[in-house]
Amino acid sequence: LVAASEVVGHGLWLSAGGRLKLPMDIDVTHAADLRSWVPSADAVGTPFPIQNLPFGRFRRRETNEPWRIGVAIGDLVLDLRLARDTQGWTAEVEQLLVPLADGDLNAFMSLGTVPRRRLRRALSAALLEGSDQQDAVECCLVAQTDIEMSMPCRVGDYTDFFTGIYHATRAGQLFRPDNPLLPNYKWVPIGYHGRASSLVPSGHPVHRPNGQTKSSDSAVPSFGPSRRLDYELELGYFVGLPNPHGTPVSIEQAKEHLFGVVLLNDWSARDIQAWEYQPLGPFMAKNFASTVSPWLVTWDALEPFRAPLLRPDADPAPLPYLYDQRDMESGLFEIQLKTWIQTAAMRTAGNHPICLATSSASEASYWTPAQLVTHHTSNGCNLQSGDLLGSGTLSGPLRQASGSLLELTEGGTVPVHLPNGEKRLFLEDGDQIVLEATCHREGFRSIGLGTCAAEIGSALPLVAHGMGR
Amino acid sequence: LVAASEVVGHGLWLSAGGRLKLPMDIDVTHAADLRSWVPSADAVGTPFPIQNLPFGRFRRRETNEPWRIGVAIGDLVLDLRLARDTQGWTAEVEQLLVPLADGDLNAFMSLGTVPRRRLRRALSAALLEGSDQQDAVECCLVAQTDIEMSMPCRVGDYTDFFTGIYHATRAGQLFRPDNPLLPNYKWVPIGYHGRASSLVPSGHPVHRPNGQTKSSDSAVPSFGPSRRLDYELELGYFVGLPNPHGTPVSIEQAKEHLFGVVLLNDWSARDIQAWEYQPLGPFMAKNFASTVSPWLVTWDALEPFRAPLLRPDADPAPLPYLYDQRDMESGLFEIQLKTWIQTAAMRTAGNHPICLATSSASEASYWTPAQLVTHHTSNGCNLQSGDLLGSGTLSGPLRQASGSLLELTEGGTVPVHLPNGEKRLFLEDGDQIVLEATCHREGFRSIGLGTCAAEIGSALPLVAHGMGR
Repeated sequence: LVAASEVVGHGLWLSAGGRLKLPMDIDVTHAADLRSWVPSADAVGTPFPIQNLPFGRFRRRETNEPWRIGVAIGDLVLDLRLARDTQGWTAEVEQLLVPLADGDLNAFMSLGTVPRRRLRRALSAALLEGSDQQDAVECCLVAQTDIEMSMPCRVGDYTDFFTGIYHATRAGQLFRPDNPLLPNYKWVPIGYHGRASSLVPSGHPVHRPNGQTKSSDSAVPSFGPSRRLDYELELGYFVGLPNPHGTPVSIEQAKEHLFGVVLLNDWSARDIQAWEYQPLGPFMAKNFASTVSPWLVTWDALEPFRAPLLRPDADPAPLPYLYDQRDMESGLFEIQLKTWIQTAAMRTAGNHPICLATSSASEASYWTPAQLVTHHTSNGCNLQSGDLLGSGTLSGPLRQASGSLLELTEGGTVPVHLPNGEKRLFLEDGDQIVLEATCHREGFRSIGLGTCAAEIGSALPLVAHGMGR
Repeated sequence: LVAASEVVGHGLWLSAGGRLKLPMDIDVTHAADLRSWVPSADAVGTPFPIQNLPFGRFRRRETNEPWRIGVAIGDLVLDLRLARDTQGWTAEVEQLLVPLADGDLNAFMSLGTVPRRRLRRALSAALLEGSDQQDAVECCLVAQTDIEMSMPCRVGDYTDFFTGIYHATRAGQLFRPDNPLLPNYKWVPIGYHGRASSLVPSGHPVHRPNGQTKSSDSAVPSFGPSRRLDYELELGYFVGLPNPHGTPVSIEQAKEHLFGVVLLNDWSARDIQAWEYQPLGPFMAKNFASTVSPWLVTWDALEPFRAPLLRPDADPAPLPYLYDQRDMESGLFEIQLKTWIQTAAMRTAGNHPICLATSSASEASYWTPAQLVTHHTSNGCNLQSGDLLGSGTLSGPLRQASGSLLELTEGGTVPVHLPNGEKRLFLEDGDQIVLEATCHREGFRSIGLGTCAAEIGSALPLVAHGMGR
């Protein structure tokens, strides 16, 4: 079976085909031929084979049991609250399971890379075909259809970046046709602070926000439901190891501070944004809700899918504080991204969701997650365990590969035609948007991030009374 | 003595002089002739007479005792962890003291207005000259010089607004001389999300941040210490009663969601800001540190200092969702604000700090705190207990009343001359900035917010290694 000592360690790795030459931290937990004794983990197309092992926070549906951390395996979840009390773990792993059994992913995240990998190897060994822990651990499994999920961890601060250069360019074109990309874009990983309190897990309904908007043909603004509600397809990078206030993280060390990745839908009310955003940036246009996929896929699970940061030769090199050769060669992940839509009419008619667009995270990104960590901490700012860094909208180079309706419809002017005859410039009530992410590479087992879904509910009443005491 | 039944309740109140006709919630705890058995609480000029009773989180210096909540009275602190165990409280007050004794101000803040006022009356009665609780409570006092203070509560999200219209105008003039105030300013309470993790209490050193800047005579940016480091004089409004996600707070109810006020120094690196802020607003220019005064002065203590929102007749009325007659008449507080500077050379020579500028919060503000709460929640965004809303820089109408060096020096072009011959365009290492706030009104005892102080430390080394594990 698998032992911790079998770790290959980092270094150059040749895939089965021998063509891939990226520096990666690959160990035996990534081997493509690992099979789990959980049958659904071996099904073709599952996002959660034994090579993935993402963390989530859950409880059984319709119970008030304490939230606990689980690990997805096929269509089941390994309940770490129950698993902690089974036999077969080393003393170290038993210690690591303590906060997880208590539902506190942040405490585990704060430990950094080495404990995370140790637990990964232990879980991989326990779930592996032929494991002598199978009988004990089998009792700790619950069907994903029987659980509800919360945010995977407490998010202290949420920062949203703007690393999608094609999105930045196409969104900029709508305002500045001759000069779409601002002069700072290729030097500064542009970002802004988002709202942590209104982050919600996949499945939570999202109401169309009310807000101030002003049409160009009106002298004064008005308050009411947004008419230009949009989604934004992003990845969310979670911070693990924190840095103390006043202690920047070097680009060489930044990877050690990253824990894992989720899908993130940064819902945006374009009409509210257009009226409010000068001079301090987006605020009410974004903070009514942001949806996060519930399974946090670790940096370790993504190692086989590392990809280089590809920039045109004419572009400036990153400033030295953001430059690390290894990061440039392998600091991104090859993640295929898809956005699906199902309107209310499609649901009624029994029509399946249809794919609005497809893009590649590594192709879309102008900055690596490590560069975001280093830039964010370069002034001494402290990132805490559980903090979330949004990638910004990850649109591909062609308009049809866009991660937002703003781009797909050229600013709300060219409708998207759906197969059932419906058209969309922006989202309508009842539309369900599903983001999906998968990782494929020859020689490795494919994994996925699962889905990030929400349905647009109608706007709230304009004024709600009775909140005070 | 004082009994809860003696509350005057809200309604029109005439001051001793009979000239003040504002609707206010005044009760016996505000009476100017109340005296405490704590002698320093009756000293002329103390910010903390018995009419104030602000909350702070502290422990005795050089101990590892648990943090607890205290109430400032004169130059002492009433330790609520000790006070909980004394006799004389009602059962209700004993309950209210439980989270406070445990150092958890957030839990108390979440209860809203009525419990907060009940505790205020109980503390006022216990500290009042002649109170039969004096002997018991006297043992629970500690000198403010013997304690260290943390942030008063956990801040989930920090939002910074832009309510200072003279600041917005003068800062805008530097970029757009002909059109300083953007068209949205008089309609939208402009705000953006700030960084919660790097909020620090008064006294914590603030290091000059490193960051990317680009001078106009250079083709490319560089990374290094900010050369245009500035302070910003703000008030910070803390949220008490939370609102659930998806439930806006009406303007009539908004006051019930506000707990108290602190001073806030929103340190700003103007050169970093100028290069990074398009198109998503300030980010690294602000998030290296923001300093907060440690004593949270409650909405109740400020009632006698209520002031109307004064706007030119030609200005538009707030949109209906932001309009409440009572809020327009009394939604601000009359708070006098001062900024002091003491340079390293001044300290060496034994020179006292000198006052850089003075302004009035009510004169400076274009939006009330209640309008900020209602706007912030109008799209369904949830404010949580302990969330912080910054006012924005509260500069007066004249340049010399500015709350930032950017304004005082006309964008870093006209130096401030200090009495010892030193000059300042922006802050230099070793400069100490102290913000101070006091409230005066005829017929009432003056109170203060205390001070918000920090000294500028030199920039951190450009790269710090060894953070990873």
